[in-house]
Amino acid sequence: MKLRDLGEGGLIRYIRERFGARTGQLPVGIGDDAAVIDFPEDSSLVFCSDAVVENTHFIRNLHPPASIGYKAVAVNVSDVGAMGGTPMHFLISLAATPDLDWVWLQGFFQGVETACDRFEVSLAGGDTSTSDRIFIDVSMVGRVPRGQAVRRTGAKPGDGIYITGTLGSSALGLELLKAGQTDDAAVQRHLFPEPRHKIGATVAPMAHAMMDISDGLSTDLTHILEESQVSARIYKDRLPVFPAAEDHHVLHGGEEYELIIIAPQLHLPPSIDGIPLSLIGEIVESGIEHQAFLIAGSQEEVLHPRGWQHF
Amino acid sequence: MKLRDLGEGGLIRYIRERFGARTGQLPVGIGDDAAVIDFPEDSSLVFCSDAVVENTHFIRNLHPPASIGYKAVAVNVSDVGAMGGTPMHFLISLAATPDLDWVWLQGFFQGVETACDRFEVSLAGGDTSTSDRIFIDVSMVGRVPRGQAVRRTGAKPGDGIYITGTLGSSALGLELLKAGQTDDAAVQRHLFPEPRHKIGATVAPMAHAMMDISDGLSTDLTHILEESQVSARIYKDRLPVFPAAEDHHVLHGGEEYELIIIAPQLHLPPSIDGIPLSLIGEIVESGIEHQAFLIAGSQEEVLHPRGWQHF
Repeated sequence: MKLRDLGEGGLIRYIRERFGARTGQLPVGIGDDAAVIDFPEDSSLVFCSDAVVENTHFIRNLHPPASIGYKAVAVNVSDVGAMGGTPMHFLISLAATPDLDWVWLQGFFQGVETACDRFEVSLAGGDTSTSDRIFIDVSMVGRVPRGQAVRRTGAKPGDGIYITGTLGSSALGLELLKAGQTDDAAVQRHLFPEPRHKIGATVAPMAHAMMDISDGLSTDLTHILEESQVSARIYKDRLPVFPAAEDHHVLHGGEEYELIIIAPQLHLPPSIDGIPLSLIGEIVESGIEHQAFLIAGSQEEVLHPRGWQHF
Repeated sequence: MKLRDLGEGGLIRYIRERFGARTGQLPVGIGDDAAVIDFPEDSSLVFCSDAVVENTHFIRNLHPPASIGYKAVAVNVSDVGAMGGTPMHFLISLAATPDLDWVWLQGFFQGVETACDRFEVSLAGGDTSTSDRIFIDVSMVGRVPRGQAVRRTGAKPGDGIYITGTLGSSALGLELLKAGQTDDAAVQRHLFPEPRHKIGATVAPMAHAMMDISDGLSTDLTHILEESQVSARIYKDRLPVFPAAEDHHVLHGGEEYELIIIAPQLHLPPSIDGIPLSLIGEIVESGIEHQAFLIAGSQEEVLHPRGWQHF
């Protein structure tokens, strides 16, 4: 069966039946002009969106549809977490080709459901339309205690630079997937990354700046440095490297969804919920240019942003 | 200049410079992992998204870019209004081809700015990515007094069916635009529709059900009937027809963004802010099928949903 056989009404009925019960406590969930959410007091609203485009973010014949549905939600969970927030509800705008296989869509929504279960979020609505390529945009709302959102702007000289988990698995996993391997741990991490939103919410009261790594350590750390108008020293031997990952995976690989946490040194524990927090360097004062210096033994070089860039 | 010459960083800087000041009062606006919004107490959050896809919703050589930017925002304003809510902030997920003309993008953002001014909403963030077609998804948050959101489910036999403004201009305008006319009033309404969100918020305390007309009167009224499990009688001679619009424009034309308001008769004024509210029919009890009957003189026929359907 193709999507055109199901029709728009059939697709929306399927989504309501599969996901409607989870939003049963909302004043208005799936199937109206908009969702309505009773928002907790003393919280600020966290609001983000992230798109997943066929042939840019995934290849239909390479990436399983469950991974695409899972990641579309997980990347937004990661963004909410990078503000120190707790994710709550999301919308999916789905543009798809009428000849899309129904099996693909079922797999996609299976991945969405896995993400709902794992991250305790729920689908509250969205939009469907026709397109000659698959385009998915997820927008998410979450909450953060008022005044506690962690920006990219607060890094101060002397602060420690911490990384959750390990680096390099997603870029390595994509290479292995393209080479035909599917059962490797790195491939699994590429397909089903673990956002660190719970760690983000835990460290928010101590953090001066925070960001998730979606475009690569070199690129995303540089964003923090530019926003905070500081520089950084990174010690290469302290980087938490995923087994078999190489330098370019670790330094520039995107879609990691580990957090870069900037906080006063000694204020963070060595691990949270079993996930290690590695102190990889420190923030230093900068001149005109805000950049990271990578230190390996007696060598020191500028860590230029070489991660993912659109256009 | 092409988008690829500007680059992703250049595009985001442009957006921040053009729109950043408007969100200066937000705890976090454009340029972080997510926006952070201090949400008013005693309100519920209204949350919606609507996508605009090249060659599905617009033709690049036919529709001016300012119209596309304006409409991408306006359709979400309309959705928030159809819940009885007041729109506040929105995100744009923009996927575009690297060879897109910078002039096109400037026109697009001009339209977004016009919508921000007219509807008192502001751009709080979003996402950019590469695509071989232009894909725009706007997600919006608004507020509604707690307990006052108007769903599609509350229509009751005896209620009046009201329509704001006039019907038929958008579908007529699209036909004229395709025929090369650009200065017609119908074309202007197709390119720059007026969402009725202020009327939606005003009538919300009286309304039993409400919806905006995006897919056509016949299709969208049927949605309300199915959700409320009722039928309807519509009197053809009471339909507020835009000058020169024909039956198929009026009954099935999409992208009107007028409101269908279901409310007890005599509870609504004949106009609000100069926009007429026309009583076009009434809700009646239904059997197994929930449908609208169109009455013209002594003739009565089922008004089948023949508006826009994706897939």
